[in-house]
Amino acid sequence: MEAGVRHTGKDADPGTADARFVDRERLWQRHMEMAKIGAIPGDGINRQALTREDITARKLLIGWAEALGFSIGMDAIGNLFIRRQGRNPDAPPVLTGSHMDSQPSGGRFDGIYGVLAGLEVLEAFDQAGVATERPVEVVAWTNEEGGRFSPGAMGSMVFTESRRLKDCLGIADARGVLFADALAETLAATPGAEKRPFNFPVAAYIEAHIEQGPKLESEGLPIGVVTGIQGSRWFEVEVVGESAHAGTTPLKFRRDALQEALAIIAALNDLMDDPTDTVRFTVGRMEVVPNSPNSVAERVSFTIDFRHPEGSVLSDLGNEIDPTCRRSVSRCEVEVREVFHRQPCVFDPQVLGTIESAANKLGLRAERMPSGAFHDALFMNDVCPAGMIFVPCEKGVSHNPAEYASPDDLAAGARVLALALLDLANR
Amino acid sequence: MEAGVRHTGKDADPGTADARFVDRERLWQRHMEMAKIGAIPGDGINRQALTREDITARKLLIGWAEALGFSIGMDAIGNLFIRRQGRNPDAPPVLTGSHMDSQPSGGRFDGIYGVLAGLEVLEAFDQAGVATERPVEVVAWTNEEGGRFSPGAMGSMVFTESRRLKDCLGIADARGVLFADALAETLAATPGAEKRPFNFPVAAYIEAHIEQGPKLESEGLPIGVVTGIQGSRWFEVEVVGESAHAGTTPLKFRRDALQEALAIIAALNDLMDDPTDTVRFTVGRMEVVPNSPNSVAERVSFTIDFRHPEGSVLSDLGNEIDPTCRRSVSRCEVEVREVFHRQPCVFDPQVLGTIESAANKLGLRAERMPSGAFHDALFMNDVCPAGMIFVPCEKGVSHNPAEYASPDDLAAGARVLALALLDLANR
Repeated sequence: MEAGVRHTGKDADPGTADARFVDRERLWQRHMEMAKIGAIPGDGINRQALTREDITARKLLIGWAEALGFSIGMDAIGNLFIRRQGRNPDAPPVLTGSHMDSQPSGGRFDGIYGVLAGLEVLEAFDQAGVATERPVEVVAWTNEEGGRFSPGAMGSMVFTESRRLKDCLGIADARGVLFADALAETLAATPGAEKRPFNFPVAAYIEAHIEQGPKLESEGLPIGVVTGIQGSRWFEVEVVGESAHAGTTPLKFRRDALQEALAIIAALNDLMDDPTDTVRFTVGRMEVVPNSPNSVAERVSFTIDFRHPEGSVLSDLGNEIDPTCRRSVSRCEVEVREVFHRQPCVFDPQVLGTIESAANKLGLRAERMPSGAFHDALFMNDVCPAGMIFVPCEKGVSHNPAEYASPDDLAAGARVLALALLDLANR
Repeated sequence: MEAGVRHTGKDADPGTADARFVDRERLWQRHMEMAKIGAIPGDGINRQALTREDITARKLLIGWAEALGFSIGMDAIGNLFIRRQGRNPDAPPVLTGSHMDSQPSGGRFDGIYGVLAGLEVLEAFDQAGVATERPVEVVAWTNEEGGRFSPGAMGSMVFTESRRLKDCLGIADARGVLFADALAETLAATPGAEKRPFNFPVAAYIEAHIEQGPKLESEGLPIGVVTGIQGSRWFEVEVVGESAHAGTTPLKFRRDALQEALAIIAALNDLMDDPTDTVRFTVGRMEVVPNSPNSVAERVSFTIDFRHPEGSVLSDLGNEIDPTCRRSVSRCEVEVREVFHRQPCVFDPQVLGTIESAANKLGLRAERMPSGAFHDALFMNDVCPAGMIFVPCEKGVSHNPAEYASPDDLAAGARVLALALLDLANR
């Protein structure tokens, strides 16, 4: 609310003057423009990575950035960089941003907020006549969600060299489209960007994001200073049985992949049972072959998303997944592949201090908190000092069309981002 | 084997002379030609109803039939009729046939055998110079499998008026394509057929089919005389929960449609538990929305295929499905729709006697047996005297690319069909 008053730019005190041109209405309108691309019923978004909708969103972002005179760069996995030049053009830039892709049935704020807040800061700096020592760049990372091409955070993983581009190219979506082909189409649709290498030096990284949990809203806090991210392990399980006629084949002759997949998941539920409700265990995707009502399933594949804030639990329970799957099949075969493994991360104390002090200057209450979701900042934390700013989202609902964050809260987060980036860009 | 010798036509005795031009090689080659359309690895077939592959197969069949001088008819649901004229053109014809569509991962004999055996008989009659009192017609029923558009046997159900065409038109496949649109495309692709009404008078119906079970092969029998078909009930279950972020949402806040679908299926497994292994209970298709690894499932739909030879068990256990589903959900909602319900059927004793006597004349051992699978004959049995001929298939495997029937067994079945049709067409 305090921040809402300040966006007129009047009576700005010296400590917060450089955030005064962060424009609540402009930031909100850009969210609403983006929300038209891939809109689905109930205010939702289906803008999965490297689809036609993703390409349209990229073009709109590039259009806005170029109209403001910022230069565009892109690396070989389609990570998009918007640069506002610094006094020292050769200094490693300060980077901010997030992702533009969504879940198949996602909301209007997850990811895109961090990108649009970054663009808002660049424009506000221009309007305020601010010059920074280092360049400030906004990045839109490719395929953070991982809903189409698994795993997620491919763009930031490849940029930070925790995964090789060539190991991503052969990954197929549920319809068999290769990541390589979808990427080539996306790159071809947005020509003219300066070619950027992977892992160029970055001075610091801050990512603004909606919380995707209920804490900030329920405690009336406008700002969360994110201390770290719980660890994640993703698995793909494939159960192979034999197709057979549903009307003629007795149970004793069946090798039913669907029934055995269910037995596996029941055993995994037991494994993951946790009275403290800290374990996050999710089977979110399942594919059945031939998927015909009167054929016994020959093949079932499903995914496991397992997360925990403690590294030792993540290791111990996660390592039990493969043997549990194997123990749970009788007539079928099962294969378990781990496609993603990331231990918990702790963000840079100096970056966190900078964010906290920016919030204080703006009179915004801020509290330190961990992140349940992973974000691109998880990987950037490997290569530079990194941190995150959370803003509240209604009832903590995310990955859902009903996801909502208020214009005031989005603007407040962008103002904190502006002051924190300014501080880091002048160090 | 005995029959294999006779196909040369030499030394044919009077009782079997009219089957002597049934040509083992020609019948086999036509199966192999058809098997090229929609071929999948492992000798399989993916030729689902009203697809491009189905249209191609229809064109090939029409081509063969027209080259032999037979006339082609089609009704409004795409059931295809090949007519060999009788001395009395106005007499209700004797009908034989089956279907040309396959399971998504089906074999080279299921359905298509009954159609090609029928065509073989018409050609053999021509070659033998046989004239029949009644016309003899071969039918290829639309969408028997039901793998793409559920339920199956739509063509024969609509023909026999046990279901209305207009109630089928709005049914969508897994990709959202409407039956109405796929049908219109198929009808447009095969113009020039005489328009036939539904439920025109039929004197008798015989369907030849592979057994899809192990009995004939294991007992060394070339011919099964099918006494009836077990009852079937098909259901569609939809579980509705709420999508949520897999990394941030505690179990206690989840409404996970996939987990509750698994609980439902576990309860149904208990309900259907049967020490005699007579109950056929199959969950063969499952669809998850949004089907993303890091989103809790919002919506899961799955199918139930339940069959039993006893009408009372079919009724009693089947009626427990809906309440069992409702009892098994806690935080989600569930809706159960019954999409198909057919009590067990008993075929016409006279038709069965005719088939048995044809096998006897040919020196082929035949035994009476029930059918576990349903077939179009189930519905034809409502409107005319009907029966079925089974031939052995290897290890009973069906709805599977490995499905196999030998050229000798296929030819033997076609010879029995020829004599039985001749008998019925001259009554």
